[in-house]
Amino acid sequence: MTEKQEQNYLELSGLQREISLLVSISALVEWDQRCYMPPGGSEHRAAQTEYLAGRIHAKATSPRIGDLLNELEATRFDDKRDPRAVNIREWRREYDLRTKLPQEFVEELSRTTSLAQDAWVAARRNKDFPAFKPWLEKITELKKQEADYYGWTVEPYDALLDSYEPGAKASEIAVVLEGLRDQLVPLLQAIQGSPRKPQVSILHRDFPEEAQEAFVKRVAAAIGYNFDRGRLDQTTHPFCTSIGPNDVRITTRFIRNHVNAAFFGVLHEAGHGLYQQNLPPQHAYTPMAEAVSLGIHESQSRMWENAVGRSLAFWKFWFPEAQKAFTALKNVKLDEFVFAINAVEPSFIRVEADETTYNLHILLRFELERAMVKGDLKPSDVPGAWNEKVKAYFGLTVPDDAQGCLQDIHWSSGYIGYFPTYSLGNLNAAQFFAKAQEDLGDLEAMFEKGEFSPLLEWLKKNIHQHGKRYLSAELTKVVTGKPLESKPLIDCLKRKASLWYGV
Amino acid sequence: MTEKQEQNYLELSGLQREISLLVSISALVEWDQRCYMPPGGSEHRAAQTEYLAGRIHAKATSPRIGDLLNELEATRFDDKRDPRAVNIREWRREYDLRTKLPQEFVEELSRTTSLAQDAWVAARRNKDFPAFKPWLEKITELKKQEADYYGWTVEPYDALLDSYEPGAKASEIAVVLEGLRDQLVPLLQAIQGSPRKPQVSILHRDFPEEAQEAFVKRVAAAIGYNFDRGRLDQTTHPFCTSIGPNDVRITTRFIRNHVNAAFFGVLHEAGHGLYQQNLPPQHAYTPMAEAVSLGIHESQSRMWENAVGRSLAFWKFWFPEAQKAFTALKNVKLDEFVFAINAVEPSFIRVEADETTYNLHILLRFELERAMVKGDLKPSDVPGAWNEKVKAYFGLTVPDDAQGCLQDIHWSSGYIGYFPTYSLGNLNAAQFFAKAQEDLGDLEAMFEKGEFSPLLEWLKKNIHQHGKRYLSAELTKVVTGKPLESKPLIDCLKRKASLWYGV
Repeated sequence: MTEKQEQNYLELSGLQREISLLVSISALVEWDQRCYMPPGGSEHRAAQTEYLAGRIHAKATSPRIGDLLNELEATRFDDKRDPRAVNIREWRREYDLRTKLPQEFVEELSRTTSLAQDAWVAARRNKDFPAFKPWLEKITELKKQEADYYGWTVEPYDALLDSYEPGAKASEIAVVLEGLRDQLVPLLQAIQGSPRKPQVSILHRDFPEEAQEAFVKRVAAAIGYNFDRGRLDQTTHPFCTSIGPNDVRITTRFIRNHVNAAFFGVLHEAGHGLYQQNLPPQHAYTPMAEAVSLGIHESQSRMWENAVGRSLAFWKFWFPEAQKAFTALKNVKLDEFVFAINAVEPSFIRVEADETTYNLHILLRFELERAMVKGDLKPSDVPGAWNEKVKAYFGLTVPDDAQGCLQDIHWSSGYIGYFPTYSLGNLNAAQFFAKAQEDLGDLEAMFEKGEFSPLLEWLKKNIHQHGKRYLSAELTKVVTGKPLESKPLIDCLKRKASLWYGV
Repeated sequence: MTEKQEQNYLELSGLQREISLLVSISALVEWDQRCYMPPGGSEHRAAQTEYLAGRIHAKATSPRIGDLLNELEATRFDDKRDPRAVNIREWRREYDLRTKLPQEFVEELSRTTSLAQDAWVAARRNKDFPAFKPWLEKITELKKQEADYYGWTVEPYDALLDSYEPGAKASEIAVVLEGLRDQLVPLLQAIQGSPRKPQVSILHRDFPEEAQEAFVKRVAAAIGYNFDRGRLDQTTHPFCTSIGPNDVRITTRFIRNHVNAAFFGVLHEAGHGLYQQNLPPQHAYTPMAEAVSLGIHESQSRMWENAVGRSLAFWKFWFPEAQKAFTALKNVKLDEFVFAINAVEPSFIRVEADETTYNLHILLRFELERAMVKGDLKPSDVPGAWNEKVKAYFGLTVPDDAQGCLQDIHWSSGYIGYFPTYSLGNLNAAQFFAKAQEDLGDLEAMFEKGEFSPLLEWLKKNIHQHGKRYLSAELTKVVTGKPLESKPLIDCLKRKASLWYGV
């Protein structure tokens, strides 16, 4: 870099730091809305959210950033992985995405989704899709508009997808998910034909909320989630958010008669939290200290939730502790418990679905939202279409929309094109875990002793510390030596099916 | 208003609304820091707070606001109480206060107090004044600088005082407080000579936190605090804050073996909350929907805490409920309980002090901070000076600085000149309450039946709905027909001394 370029880089970093501060303030405002805001606060909160979104957009689209990027892109880097080269690349990407959206549009979308989230909470509680329908219509129209602003070639949905998982295409996702489906359906049939059945009722016994909270906090701390730099609160829809480099918060919900929600929900969110807590601090406030993509983020949460948290080895260590914490587990055998948490059965609720059927839930949402954005499906027809697909994939009849199309917060938040990243997460989780096992030896033997730091250190070294150094597909290749493939996930699910169901 | 003036007023309102939004976001950021932020978040939080303070300052000092005010001040209003006239007057006041402080100074003060608050929490916990001393020195220097920026004639402390209670003067406050002291000391001596003694140990029995929380929430709701537009959380130092017109939050602390902290702390904060919740909504985002001054704000909290909450009538209604909620009160008689909560005795902690000694605590702080700002007292000499005054006023020996000069958050927050407003609050509370009783008849008979809405409606009509229509001294005159005087407070304390101590 020339001296002039150094100066430009410094100026650009300063402008981006200001944007980061506003984004972090916005994250706190949203966290509060979902955790603690009283109902009356809704209208003013929408004004606050809209204002912040508008300020962020205005700053992130300032022509000065464009000018500085133009100058900096003339820099020759010996290594395109140089942190400054990576930051310039990512700032350019963000700038291009931003400058394609007019400020009034960003503010309207933000205001709409803020109110829609509150409407969704009420609609879900009251099982009242008609109350939510106008919001879904409004949001779908806005997202189509957004896709048009970004521009697209094959179909508008691609433009939305790209903003969550750079470079991904709907047609390719469809192929991958349908491929997974073709493998999973025969496996699911074999499992359903097995005479062995887990006692899932074990998980529906009485697990007092306070005891759940104490237990999951111990587990989260044991896998490395740092409560001095984070916290756990309760929300309807669990999430993980970064308020600052050393303030990474997770949420969960405690269901007294269904222990899975918190047990695996917290492992999931703590998995996200571990990624955020271990991004490289020396690059704070730049893309080099941000996660690669939603798919890679989800690979971390899924790995801790499933590859670790549903393993027999994990529970060899934790089950005796769980038995001390819950009288409901007093007379339960380890094997019975672990079989129950690995039960495979068709169900209504995505966040409680098992590993084998989970990706079918994603396929269903992906198909519906893709059709809505294409204009092939009206929002008013969503409940019917949803229920038909649930019937077709799982053989189940949806009893009400709270257990159907109103179950997820995503659409009310404007997250259309987001769901597929969950499946990309599952695929990457399995592929990374297989590689970690190859590198570290017998991970399960470590889990049995309550040792989780070797896996965490491997993740820090191979994934977390890189920030946005690599794009999603590149990272998979760099870490595992192979492009993303479905084999590791299928292998893992088949191994489990064999272990528990004997098929 | 001419058409041009109408346009200017509209433009100014828009600029002020933006400032209000930023202030409300800043309030949420501070609420979170004090209620929920994990320890690791401290450094980034200081950056967020500094950034917001800087943005607010930059916007509030924009020359455009000065130009618009200049133009609008030419407007002839038939009534100087016209809401627009009031808003213009107050926006001018804020603008003048703001433009006297350079932005770098505001940011430095904000950053310093953010870190100082965290240092204070640790210092108080560890009873370690030396750890807090450098922060007190730094803050005192900054506040002297602030006074110089504002300008002063008699002494720099006046300039600080004025920012909390417009028009007040240190020399006048000293006269009032010393006058109160001259009345209270003989009363205190008479009380201490009385053979009747309350059983204060009743209040130090076992009151489980969960039961306290449930009880105080019921009481707060019963006096009219709206939980759909507010909430109650826990903090070291209780406070009330407005996140938005319909989002007014209060905090408290639950001390298992000292029920007063939460019982009267929540009545106090709910008193503030009632004022904020009942400001005129049609004037939202303008001074017409803001409280008059800190002293008037405190008059509301003190009235609910003391005039209502410590009355025999109030407990005729609530004591049977308290007995159901706490086994500790099972065999206690109503009179014993109400005597205990009206106990008069010298103590270390201001927030737990009784009505009679409270203003001596204020006098002590006022004298010390006034001397620090004058340069007559070094921050390093504060513990010694504090302890000497406690000895002189209360005859007590301070056991450690956590119970002495480290007990209050104010100085760490940069609130120097703030304490006297508490006494102005006590004086106004007594004077307003006497007038309400004159207007409404037997308030105590209403309290006995659990009826608090007549008093609340009176406060809404006479105080809350006016926003900043009147200055503090004007409001006292308009509502009670008299200037502020000490007689109602002295009368009230003497009546209680006679009732309980027979003196």
